[in-house]
Amino acid sequence: MPRLHIGNIKPHVVEAKYAVRGELAVKSEEYRAKLRRGDTDLSFSEVISANIGNPQQLDQKPITFFRQVLSILEYPQLLDNEQVLLNNLGYKPDVLERARFLLKNIGSVGAYSASAGVPAIKESVAKFLEKRDGFPADPAHIYLSAGASSGVNTLLHILCAEPTSGILVPIPQYPLYTASLAVLNATCVPYYLDEAAQWGTSVETIKEAYNAAKSNGTDVRAIVIINPGNPTGASLSEADIRSVLQFAAEEKLVVLADEVYQTNVFVGKFHSFRQVLLTLQKENPGKYDGVELASLHSISKGMVGECGHRGGYFDLIGFNKEVEEQIYKFVSIMLCAPVIGQCLVELMVNPPQPGDPSYPLYEQEYNGIFEGLRKRATALYEAFKEMEGVECGEPQGSMYLFPTIHVSTKAADAARAEGRTPDEFYCMRLLEATGVCVVPGSGFGQKEGTLHFRTTFLAPGTEWVSSIKKFHQEFMEKYR
Amino acid sequence: MPRLHIGNIKPHVVEAKYAVRGELAVKSEEYRAKLRRGDTDLSFSEVISANIGNPQQLDQKPITFFRQVLSILEYPQLLDNEQVLLNNLGYKPDVLERARFLLKNIGSVGAYSASAGVPAIKESVAKFLEKRDGFPADPAHIYLSAGASSGVNTLLHILCAEPTSGILVPIPQYPLYTASLAVLNATCVPYYLDEAAQWGTSVETIKEAYNAAKSNGTDVRAIVIINPGNPTGASLSEADIRSVLQFAAEEKLVVLADEVYQTNVFVGKFHSFRQVLLTLQKENPGKYDGVELASLHSISKGMVGECGHRGGYFDLIGFNKEVEEQIYKFVSIMLCAPVIGQCLVELMVNPPQPGDPSYPLYEQEYNGIFEGLRKRATALYEAFKEMEGVECGEPQGSMYLFPTIHVSTKAADAARAEGRTPDEFYCMRLLEATGVCVVPGSGFGQKEGTLHFRTTFLAPGTEWVSSIKKFHQEFMEKYR
Repeated sequence: MPRLHIGNIKPHVVEAKYAVRGELAVKSEEYRAKLRRGDTDLSFSEVISANIGNPQQLDQKPITFFRQVLSILEYPQLLDNEQVLLNNLGYKPDVLERARFLLKNIGSVGAYSASAGVPAIKESVAKFLEKRDGFPADPAHIYLSAGASSGVNTLLHILCAEPTSGILVPIPQYPLYTASLAVLNATCVPYYLDEAAQWGTSVETIKEAYNAAKSNGTDVRAIVIINPGNPTGASLSEADIRSVLQFAAEEKLVVLADEVYQTNVFVGKFHSFRQVLLTLQKENPGKYDGVELASLHSISKGMVGECGHRGGYFDLIGFNKEVEEQIYKFVSIMLCAPVIGQCLVELMVNPPQPGDPSYPLYEQEYNGIFEGLRKRATALYEAFKEMEGVECGEPQGSMYLFPTIHVSTKAADAARAEGRTPDEFYCMRLLEATGVCVVPGSGFGQKEGTLHFRTTFLAPGTEWVSSIKKFHQEFMEKYR
Repeated sequence: MPRLHIGNIKPHVVEAKYAVRGELAVKSEEYRAKLRRGDTDLSFSEVISANIGNPQQLDQKPITFFRQVLSILEYPQLLDNEQVLLNNLGYKPDVLERARFLLKNIGSVGAYSASAGVPAIKESVAKFLEKRDGFPADPAHIYLSAGASSGVNTLLHILCAEPTSGILVPIPQYPLYTASLAVLNATCVPYYLDEAAQWGTSVETIKEAYNAAKSNGTDVRAIVIINPGNPTGASLSEADIRSVLQFAAEEKLVVLADEVYQTNVFVGKFHSFRQVLLTLQKENPGKYDGVELASLHSISKGMVGECGHRGGYFDLIGFNKEVEEQIYKFVSIMLCAPVIGQCLVELMVNPPQPGDPSYPLYEQEYNGIFEGLRKRATALYEAFKEMEGVECGEPQGSMYLFPTIHVSTKAADAARAEGRTPDEFYCMRLLEATGVCVVPGSGFGQKEGTLHFRTTFLAPGTEWVSSIKKFHQEFMEKYR
């Protein structure tokens, strides 16, 4: 018997579920390795990782301005050859200027930065927030993080004091939240999004979940909102955000606004929780002053798509000073967020502006990516509309579609015989038949009796969409 | 009253102590900001951050080969101008070759990698381990991490099942361990290093600590060894490593070998726990087969010094398959280590070899950094020898000296009046007088009644050393 085994390691780690990189993802990587070795016994020639929002793994190209600046940050001696950069390599003067600005403020990107991030980069984020929301921001309350995931991890560590500490989490949700709450041995208080209303957020539903949890002895402390939604793509209206904040103010709930998809919006307009909260505070002196809001953003999504660089930030409003000191200490134990990722945060929030030498290409690339995503989303949506027993809302935002599937009793029985839920069963068969890896709805949570899967719409071309359609038809025939 | 306050957030976070970036570090950053603003009311003109092993913040230059490769990884279009790179920018052909190899295996550094790291990079680490230790390694048990800190965090999460789960930790130690155990609400079982024997590790002392903890009901599961030591610099002999492993085998303790300073060795030779364990397994069939060993390494230290890039790995021997599955799941929740940091791991473990075009410069830079560190360490040590009431062992390795200080009763009283320990008091006065930031020994743990501080020997020049000497003399006079 080894010293460590499944029965004596931390049980809360064992309990955590994270389907986005679970069994299906592991199997898809095995297939990919097989194909790389030249094996020909699979019924497909390519693995499509539609299980995770990983734009640059598929087709999304990095923004040229960003990467040119990073190349100089990694090798500052390039600046000794200014003419070569400008004349032979096509770098524009504003690339060199930005690199100089960052190097001046950072020193080497190989050095640890201050724990909460490079001060000059926090100032850039503050300026971005001010411009986006129309209210000034204070860099002292901005914390740079290794992606938004690391920010969520920090905030939940602070919030989850006891097993009875409860956090309201939308269902379906990106499973970072339920997985982290499991590891922290705290209570997830699920509130369901309304599929019939394009996955909208209803304060009535939140209230019911809150009251039920409270009456069960849960100390509900915070509410998570993912806007635009993951996996749903839903984009909250300003009125919905107001009502969530009103509820948070009434019940003294900390608000965690996960806004990493804020630029991935096809329908309507993104409203930040920060902007709406500060507006409410202005309109209603005193009433909203006590609201504690943490908003998170990331370089991984949007037209930036730089997941591998692990950059992001969170911004705090209304947090107690002593609590912020504990947040600082907590992040300092892991020293600092990757400094190159911090630089990408700066570039994201402070991109080339009209008139800058790099602006025309930046604009072209940015719009190209945005339009490409919209087109792919629409093509996939059109394909789902044609598939028997599949229902899917119009693409609204984020990087995902989350269709409902209806499977026969025969398929459900076959799934049970394999020890899987019907959606897991469906997704496993899909992977085996087509090489397309998606995530079963059960990985995000879904209403009892409903079945879904989440797919990104990042993969190029239409072949993989056709292969899903073909598989689906065969699956339906087989289990009719 | 805010919803979150110091009395209701996670108490285990509040209890954690992390002096390396604590009050003194915060104050030193305030001074730095003051100086940057042009304030002239301080008694020094520069802040020297000797509190943290952050080589590139001070004087250590990045290795040219590494950074040239990274510049291409960030902007692969540079490869379209091969002649410009070679003829105008001084890149050698092996830089381009390595960049091509990494890009081929990674795709974009802006994409998430596999959760445990890029497979090709894990293979390079395995080859490095094989070459270093003389025993083959399996990439399947190698996990790339965001610095060694993140690896320690992962392993302690798995190990710490209950408040009674105990981990043997050397004292003095780098406070990542005690801080993480506090956050995880597990039990730190301290064992003292022997200052009189150049901070050596004694198995007798470990046994005593182990038995005492066991008889108090602690479920001691693992032993942490930091070799070479932080903050002590001590380098373990092969015999000492053998005896630790023998004890671990007898008592079924998991071994966590923190070997991030493996190339920072001035006295003796580095022996890896992995090499010694595999040798013991070979020599004593059956006896050591059950030992579970995790070894950690990092790009942050050594002649690499790339802390800001947050890269590292850990390698597991003897871990149960189901436990490794849980480790995989745990790391996957945070998606992956920064991909550029992973690439630096590859470059660290697979540097230019004799005959390669980049080798001469690499060798010159590497040796220059090593000799520079040795010289600085010696200069600082010589200064400490001349200081009244200061005792310091000869520099052995890592990036630190950890002198003992003796202060008068008067100084101890003045410290008490300020609510500080005498070493905290001393270090605070040192910072105020000289701008030199060091860490009080209490931040690492020290034997009752002894006082120390830890300083890096990374800062260039001798001026800061003179300012410490001058301060010390004045301090001794004042409190005589």
